[in-house]
Amino acid sequence: MIDTSQAIGLGSNATMKFCSSCASTVTLRIPAGDNRPRFVCDSCHTIHYQNPNIVAGCIAEWEDRILLCKRAIEPRYGLWTLPAGFMENGETAPEAALRETYEEARARVQLNSLFTLFNLPHINQVYLIFRARLLDLEFGPGDESLAVELYEESAIPWEKMAFPAIMETLKLYFADRAEGHFGTHIGDIERQQGEPRRYRIRMLDNPAAIRNLSTPDSSP
Amino acid sequence: MIDTSQAIGLGSNATMKFCSSCASTVTLRIPAGDNRPRFVCDSCHTIHYQNPNIVAGCIAEWEDRILLCKRAIEPRYGLWTLPAGFMENGETAPEAALRETYEEARARVQLNSLFTLFNLPHINQVYLIFRARLLDLEFGPGDESLAVELYEESAIPWEKMAFPAIMETLKLYFADRAEGHFGTHIGDIERQQGEPRRYRIRMLDNPAAIRNLSTPDSSP
Repeated sequence: MIDTSQAIGLGSNATMKFCSSCASTVTLRIPAGDNRPRFVCDSCHTIHYQNPNIVAGCIAEWEDRILLCKRAIEPRYGLWTLPAGFMENGETAPEAALRETYEEARARVQLNSLFTLFNLPHINQVYLIFRARLLDLEFGPGDESLAVELYEESAIPWEKMAFPAIMETLKLYFADRAEGHFGTHIGDIERQQGEPRRYRIRMLDNPAAIRNLSTPDSSP
Repeated sequence: MIDTSQAIGLGSNATMKFCSSCASTVTLRIPAGDNRPRFVCDSCHTIHYQNPNIVAGCIAEWEDRILLCKRAIEPRYGLWTLPAGFMENGETAPEAALRETYEEARARVQLNSLFTLFNLPHINQVYLIFRARLLDLEFGPGDESLAVELYEESAIPWEKMAFPAIMETLKLYFADRAEGHFGTHIGDIERQQGEPRRYRIRMLDNPAAIRNLSTPDSSP
């Protein structure tokens, strides 16, 4: 289940006006002993921390093809992505990846290692994408997908991909597959100013090599 | 900066009573189209999602020794840990690890690859610990540390370690170092019922091999 306000990075509390403990007003200020602004209650002085969210998902493999989902929800309605979504309280990242893969693609997989960790500081998200083995061909669109299909590399709809972290993950995946060895890749994706959307990508193992990426759609 | 209520897993909103948008009461219920309980506003119907937090830190290496911090704050006051803390909005996980390493140990490091990802679903946390190279010996205790010291393997104070995810990370680190190859290890640590604190550990690459771990202290 994806909340659109989270998906576009606002977070549920980003515009906090009132204290969730006592209903008094809050003020954005730097608490004593801290070094960054927080929403602090004017009455009970509770500090309301806000932290990044994890998006967990997988590359589900079947022979030389992988599973993509066509989004039935905003943002990026109608564009393609890997099955992935927000990790919930009380679950592990692998459990979140399995759950999202079933919810969005009705697919059962066995998870392999972590393949990419992408930081998206402009929307306070961390993507964790695992490699996975599709267990059977009984998959299909869940409520949040218009279609779910297996794609071989040459057929990937690069011009219709929804999210930069997923595009980068797939590029790294096919590059590693060609070399016969899958690593764990850590990188940052930062949105640049203006429209259409452009991103700057930097990998932890080679921070000097900054690349640029555009996504096909400029919808919110 | 560590908030104790987060460190013990309550989260700032775990006991939410009022809507942070309109100050009306909230009810814990399953929203339409969702499948798990959320705090939902009785008046404006805002859904207040709560998600796991990331703790980022590093194993800072200097020759055959690594940097440990003795905690000057609760929980686990006086026990030892790696420099690590909550990732903030607007930063990347590597930036969070660098910042926490400076805040807690006044140490400057160059980050290497991701070494462990531990899920702690009972407290809604994901630990991301990187390997890192200490750049010089000008380190010392920050506000949240009583002491910061370099330890060789034989001197690690295993009986005085603060957190199970850090103990497991160090065990894996020394095992990998002995084999001459560092991997990226993904695992779950789940707290068992009762006191003293006991944990069950399961690694993604060998889920059948479940181990048990106790931590030395049973303070909150």
